[in-house]
Amino acid sequence: MHRTRSYLINGDFNQVVSPLDRGFAYGDGVFRTMLMQNGLLECWPLHYQKLVADCAAIGIVCPSAELLMSDLQQLISKQELTENLTSVIKIIITRGEGDRGYAAPAITNPTRVVLNTPMRRYSEGNLTNGVNLHICKTRLATQTRLAGIKHLNRLENVMARMEWQDENIFDGVILDQHENAIECTMSNIFARFDRKLITPDLSDCGVAGVTRQRIMGLASTLNLTVEVQALQIKKLLLADEVIICNSLYGAFQVKKIGERKMPQQTLANTIRTLLKS
Amino acid sequence: MHRTRSYLINGDFNQVVSPLDRGFAYGDGVFRTMLMQNGLLECWPLHYQKLVADCAAIGIVCPSAELLMSDLQQLISKQELTENLTSVIKIIITRGEGDRGYAAPAITNPTRVVLNTPMRRYSEGNLTNGVNLHICKTRLATQTRLAGIKHLNRLENVMARMEWQDENIFDGVILDQHENAIECTMSNIFARFDRKLITPDLSDCGVAGVTRQRIMGLASTLNLTVEVQALQIKKLLLADEVIICNSLYGAFQVKKIGERKMPQQTLANTIRTLLKS
Repeated sequence: MHRTRSYLINGDFNQVVSPLDRGFAYGDGVFRTMLMQNGLLECWPLHYQKLVADCAAIGIVCPSAELLMSDLQQLISKQELTENLTSVIKIIITRGEGDRGYAAPAITNPTRVVLNTPMRRYSEGNLTNGVNLHICKTRLATQTRLAGIKHLNRLENVMARMEWQDENIFDGVILDQHENAIECTMSNIFARFDRKLITPDLSDCGVAGVTRQRIMGLASTLNLTVEVQALQIKKLLLADEVIICNSLYGAFQVKKIGERKMPQQTLANTIRTLLKS
Repeated sequence: MHRTRSYLINGDFNQVVSPLDRGFAYGDGVFRTMLMQNGLLECWPLHYQKLVADCAAIGIVCPSAELLMSDLQQLISKQELTENLTSVIKIIITRGEGDRGYAAPAITNPTRVVLNTPMRRYSEGNLTNGVNLHICKTRLATQTRLAGIKHLNRLENVMARMEWQDENIFDGVILDQHENAIECTMSNIFARFDRKLITPDLSDCGVAGVTRQRIMGLASTLNLTVEVQALQIKKLLLADEVIICNSLYGAFQVKKIGERKMPQQTLANTIRTLLKS
């Protein structure tokens, strides 16, 4: 069964995004990106919980999980089911179409987009040796009203990602305006100091990802304590080890941040195994 | 000649916005809103100049003015030309389609959308008596990398606009995180103190609109000096008069900000006449 389109809008293969959709006009919406293997979404309950919370944070009523699952069933090809392929599912929820102007319509009808995109192949070196991080010049703005939410206003991430072309750099650490490391453009970050795992406080900026949440939950299994706190970039560079994470690759060891070589360690491998189990 | 669609994408009535368009995925683009009367765009050279500058600021090569004008010609109905109707033209330029992920494609092909939308009817009271402003709780974040640009990351404006439902409130003043009045959700702002006209400094946040620029250019005609500077909300409330402006309504006198009644004055009327001449 061949689909010419790899996405569904409001459950319909023929529906299109209107330029009057507030997601397009203002970035007025949220999204999630997750792995699908053999037709099953990895950690769907956590992703759906976060989707609902992010929608609520900007005043959108999230479509039901049943509706999204029904979209997904339509979107999965037989090939994916029979060949046990891995792909990436992206779900976008917007406030829907509106008239011109910032005021939301009296009755909103959220737009839901479910996209099936190919899984990027990560190099074997990322798994065995870890990854290099750029230190971004672009800073994250302090906006407590929107911090933590994975909303569609992602120009800061785009600007930060435009800072490097070098294929040996996997991601870039982004700081806030007070020299705190917050996250990477597409990843959260953890630093281990002895038996303490620190992940940056995201109450001013950044995206609080599902894998970050899962790793925080794994800390005791790893015999580590975990703390959410401000993490100055100077301090990050002195960590016993640093890992980054997201829902697609799980966790990677960081071998270099800017010009600073980080200690060779194995926390990311351990965590990756635990995340898969 | 009846059009079922009032917009063109890349000069094509049949083209649609892809959910993979970076404008939709990340708000990775810019826009302009302007008046069209009798088939002519008001202040097109200034709008185009700002469109080019805003595109350049985020690394997009703006489509040529000729291309946009050719889109516009296709979009204008005979009815609009013969009946001398006023409508609102919105132009959106995005970085175009990309793969999933923040990295911009090696070769980008910007998406241009030209929309023709009906002109909102402003009440006669707005013209004769002025308008009321809400003071927004939502604050603008400091982001020097993106300040001044009319980009598609407008969630702050959306959140601010959601703060009131009262139809007697025309717009809301938004402050930064240091109690400076910056702009309104859809307007720039000017305060007159004696012979001095002050408009907020937009180097940290806010959108530097074309009408703001035009009014600054009119100051000497009005026998006023104009200064761009930080403007604390406390100071704004003590102004001899306050006006707001944008490209659609020109300028309106402000009669009330929050609970504070402002002096009855006439600067907006004078400026509106000058803007039209």
